[in-house]
Order: sequence, then structure tokens, then C-alpha cells
Amino acid sequence: MPADRHAARRQKLIRAIRRESADALLVTNFTNVSYLTGFSGDDSHLLIGPSATVLISDSRYTTQLQQECPGLDLHIRGPGKSMTDAAAKVVARAKLATVGFESGSLTYDQWHALAAQTKSADLKPLSGLVEKLRLVKDSHEIAEIRKAVYQAEHGFQAFRACLLGDMTERRAAHELEHSMRRFGAVGASFAPIVAVGSQSALPHARPTDREIGESSFVLVDWGATAVQGYKSDLTRIIVTGKISPKLARIYRVVLNAQRIGIDSIRPGLRCCDVDQAARKSIANAGYGKNFGHGLGHGIGLDIHEGPRLGPSSTETLKPGMVVTVEPGVYLPGWGGIRIEDDVLVTRDGCEVLTSTPKELQEAVLE
Amino acid sequence: MPADRHAARRQKLIRAIRRESADALLVTNFTNVSYLTGFSGDDSHLLIGPSATVLISDSRYTTQLQQECPGLDLHIRGPGKSMTDAAAKVVARAKLATVGFESGSLTYDQWHALAAQTKSADLKPLSGLVEKLRLVKDSHEIAEIRKAVYQAEHGFQAFRACLLGDMTERRAAHELEHSMRRFGAVGASFAPIVAVGSQSALPHARPTDREIGESSFVLVDWGATAVQGYKSDLTRIIVTGKISPKLARIYRVVLNAQRIGIDSIRPGLRCCDVDQAARKSIANAGYGKNFGHGLGHGIGLDIHEGPRLGPSSTETLKPGMVVTVEPGVYLPGWGGIRIEDDVLVTRDGCEVLTSTPKELQEAVLE
Repeated sequence: MPADRHAARRQKLIRAIRRESADALLVTNFTNVSYLTGFSGDDSHLLIGPSATVLISDSRYTTQLQQECPGLDLHIRGPGKSMTDAAAKVVARAKLATVGFESGSLTYDQWHALAAQTKSADLKPLSGLVEKLRLVKDSHEIAEIRKAVYQAEHGFQAFRACLLGDMTERRAAHELEHSMRRFGAVGASFAPIVAVGSQSALPHARPTDREIGESSFVLVDWGATAVQGYKSDLTRIIVTGKISPKLARIYRVVLNAQRIGIDSIRPGLRCCDVDQAARKSIANAGYGKNFGHGLGHGIGLDIHEGPRLGPSSTETLKPGMVVTVEPGVYLPGWGGIRIEDDVLVTRDGCEVLTSTPKELQEAVLE
Repeated sequence: MPADRHAARRQKLIRAIRRESADALLVTNFTNVSYLTGFSGDDSHLLIGPSATVLISDSRYTTQLQQECPGLDLHIRGPGKSMTDAAAKVVARAKLATVGFESGSLTYDQWHALAAQTKSADLKPLSGLVEKLRLVKDSHEIAEIRKAVYQAEHGFQAFRACLLGDMTERRAAHELEHSMRRFGAVGASFAPIVAVGSQSALPHARPTDREIGESSFVLVDWGATAVQGYKSDLTRIIVTGKISPKLARIYRVVLNAQRIGIDSIRPGLRCCDVDQAARKSIANAGYGKNFGHGLGHGIGLDIHEGPRLGPSSTETLKPGMVVTVEPGVYLPGWGGIRIEDDVLVTRDGCEVLTSTPKELQEAVLE
């Protein structure tokens, strides 16, 4: 019962709003609005609090809102009325004294306009309240992430089977997205990284016109977005030539670190300790300086969300969190090896949601 | 000479900054940063003014910045330093008294952090300065938009030739994007609209599982993004069944209004008058209430940018502006007809950049 699921999320948020001594929160981040209401459109805000909850939108969305969010109070702003005009009106009508706003999402101009129009209310910057709820996924969200994993993995298999040496990185990235869509994805969860040889030394390489066959291996970092917006995120190496001793060595170091990171995951562990476990393993192998980014991040409606698994992360793992584990070793001029899986924290440990083979021998393209 | 092109844009902006009595502008919108520097990455800000121009980025981008923006001063922020930390440092070092910021882009939290760290400078909200420069395209930009038009039109032709009655709207939208990429597009310039029959009555319909053959016509609104980020935007009807008298009538009304709108375009005309010319024609035919949106909008690095062609637009057309002309008539329950082309304002009139056939007979799928 979807209505109950969203109502439950709103109830939790209302408790958090009370704890912040606010009468309501104006939710302006569209992803947060979707999370709280089930509405799949954009350009809409949600004013939510113990005494009133109103979704503010425009007439393009009236029908869709009635279908997707039955029972929710709507305020449809008229033509020529800005979102801040409408929000100010709703705040005034609800006679609220202290209204929180998402200060990490509202622009200075929007805040300024809102403040000028809500003179009777005190605006209070509050950030991260909804993001905090989104850290722990409910069963519906986990099922949706599983769909995005399915689409990414099957799309990758079909893509891999069609890979040719004279395909450019750019073309390959496009083929991969197309392939994931054949399995039901709305699209890629981010522009796929297809990085041949030395290009893979850049953790955020963008596809170029370099051809797949120009080196002996290619790094692919990709994911799918499922219909309801949930995402997956994986990285694999595809070996297209001979396995050099150096490739074999680096690959072993990274895969070993990734396994150590995954094996450490359990509720109650600090996120920085997961990072530390994998990082120490890479450092012990002599490549500490070649792993310059955090070990992983949460995935959900956003491709990067909480919790972060990094050296300075302050969060603690809880059942229902879904994180990537993606150590890498980058050698400028030679290339980089990164291996990434999506992991669900369970009550007594974790479950790896992704199952694309990752032994080096399995990475060889026949 | 790309460096000159970007330097010329920066010189114009510096003059605008002087007119606002500011010592510099902190450009935080990534698209604006690209426009001013040629840098194709993100997560970077530009502090620009008469006395100093510095691009603020991080170490992931050092190599790319040296290649793409030779000669530009760089400030590479260290790990653990936020963008506002770095910007504050650059502002302090340049000893600036009044620093403008892009108030339509900076979030409240970013502004607050910046204000706390730049106590010696006065922060002044300035919005739209770069957007104003972007209104008029230079020859390089027009050439890039032509590429995006080429990719969209050839992609559409190939897509149209493969369209099948049992394809879903969603599948068709994916095939269209894939097809544009075959002609060099980085991707679609926005999620393509493929709306069968009555679905087309929603100006912002999202593709569903409805099949192409379920009605006698389908509306397709699509465009391409070329490699340097410039975009195109078109709409055509594809007739998949019999042309009913109603379809013929509505189509004639819309096509006629679109031609009137295009024919009116010339430098010196107010944007609201272009809208009015087309709108009056639709109203005279008795469908005034069924055309609820503006006539068009600028395209460039963003799919929606200035100038707007709407009833309340205050801008005046200038040579080098590129706008869409897209009247529509929407009949709830029956469907909508919209026809859209991209038009360049020239010195003595205009040039229609798009040439996909638009006579009703040419819309029939054989």
C-alpha cells in the first residue's frame, strides 16, 4: 500500500521537525518531495508539519498528483504565480510561526523572495532532515534497487558480448546505456565511464574517441536507473588483451581490498572503519598513495547519497543502508583498477546485491 | 582561436561587473563557467573581475584545465577544503571589497558559509549577468547548434524509418536517443517526449507503456546535445493511421500559426510580439484557450534559456539569438498538436535552422 509507505515517511519527518522546534519544513528538493509523497513529477514543493501538509504544484500536474498522491492536500499555483508566491500563501494560511527550509537546496534568490513574502513567519535553515531518513531503505526501496541492479548487470552482459576492438569509448558507453534500457532501465544512473588503458587512471574519466582495442584492458563504471528512480552503481575491468604481471598484481591488490571491505560490513560498525579496513590492505601492499578517494557511498534515489564510506565519515552502519564498495589503485600513465559492488547492510552482516563475476580470469573477453 | 573567444566573453562580463559597481563576480553556475572558460568539467567556480580572474577547481581536473584553459590562473583546492573555503581564500588574496555572487545559483548554505569566511568583502547578489551575455550567440556557438540540429534531424529520420506499431512510447524514446547518438550526439538534450494520441494533450507528457499503434498519430518532441554541450529542440507529429478531419483542421491551425510566428522574426521586434502574432492566429481560429504555454524559448548550452517568447516577455530580438517557435493546440481527451523549429535571428530577418518536413502529408508514416 504505497500511500501508507509515504505516510509513514512523513510521520517520521514530522517527528524530526518537532525535535528542531519548527512548526513545519518547506521541502524544495524534488527528490525529497518524491520520497515523501510518491509524486514522480518535478517543480513541486511540500510544506509539511504537525498541523498541515500541503503539496504545492502547478496545473500541468493536477491529474497526475491526484493519481499518485491520493488524499494529500494540494495547492495548485495559478499562471504567473511563482513557487515562492505560492509557498508564502500556504505558510500564511496555515498560520505557522517557525518554518524550516532546506538550506542546501534553496537558492539565495528563492530564500530572499520567500523571506520577503513570509514576514509573519520566522524562516529557519534546516538541512539534511529528509536525507537522514533516506539513509535507511525500506523493503520497497530495496526491491527497487534490486531492479536497478538487475538492469545494470543484464545490460552489461549483453553489452560485453557485443564489444568490439574498434568501438570508441563514447560509442561503447552509448551501447551500454541502450543495453540496460532493453532490460527495463529508464536510463543510465550516470553517464557511464568507459576508460581504455591509461584513461582509467582518472577516477572520473569521460569517454573519448579512444578505441577499446588500444590497450589490454578497459574500466567500465556504470549503473541503471529503474522506473521509480532507484539506482545501481558497479565497476568492472574487461581484459581485452594479454594479462601483464603488473595488471595481475594491481588487480589482486584491489580485489583483495574490496573483499576485506565487504567482509567488514555489519550493523554498528562506523563507516570510517569500513574504509579503513580496505585502505589498510591497499597501503600494506604499497599502493596507499594510489587510492585517493573514499571507499564508497550510499545509493538510492540519488547516485551519491549518505552514508559515505570515507576516512572522515562519522556515520555508523545500520540495517537497510545500501552502499557501494569501490576501492581503486591509480597509476598515472599506466591506468587504474577499480572494482565496485552494491552492498545491503542486513541485521547480522551484509548482502552483496551485485553478482557480475569479478575474478581476473572471468574479466577476460573471449 | 578558442582562447580568444573565451577571453572576449570574459572582457564583456568584466564591463558588466564594473557597471554593477562590483570588484568581481563569483561565477558558481557550472554552465556559465564553461561558457566563460571553455572548461568542460564541473565542480569549478570562476572568480572574475577587472583586477583578477581565477578558476577554482580540484586536483581531479588539474591536467584537463591546463589543456582546456591555457593561460588562466588556477586555484586548486586541497582535499578536505570546500569550494567556499577556496573561494574565500581567493577573494581575500585578491583584496576585493565588493564581490558579486550568482544569487540564482548559490544555495543559502553556500552563501552563508561564504559570507562567514569573507568578512573583509561585501557580498552582493547579482543574477543573470552571464545569462545576459549568453542571449546572443557568436559564430562558434551557432555552428555548434547547427551540429545539434543535424544530429537531431538525422537521428529522427533513422528512428522514424524503424518505428513499429507495437513499440511502446518508452521504447521509442530510447530508440530515438540511440539513433541521435549514431550521428554524433552525446545524448538527447532532454528526455524525449513520445506521446501517442490523447497523451499528446499533456505538453510535458512522459513516455508510458502505451503502444505507438494505439492511436492514429504520435507527437515527438526531441533534441540532441552536441559534444560541446549545445542543444537543439524540435517537435513533429507522425501520422500512423488515418487523417481525421479534426486532425487535419487542428494541424492546419498550428502549422499556420507557426509559420506566422517564424515569418515575424526579425531584429528589433519585441519577443512578446512574436508570441502575439502566432497566438492571435490560433485565437482567430477559435482555439485560443487551447494554447496554454509560451511560443518559444532560447536554446544554447541550456535547453531552456533566454530569450523567452511569451505574452509577458520584455526582451527584444537581436541578431545571433536562437529561439524555438512551438505553438500548440491541446484538446484534453483527444490529443495535442505542436510543431517546433529552431530559428536564428539574422541581421535582416531569420534563418530556420531545422528542415525536417512539416506538411501534414509529409507526416504520414508509409
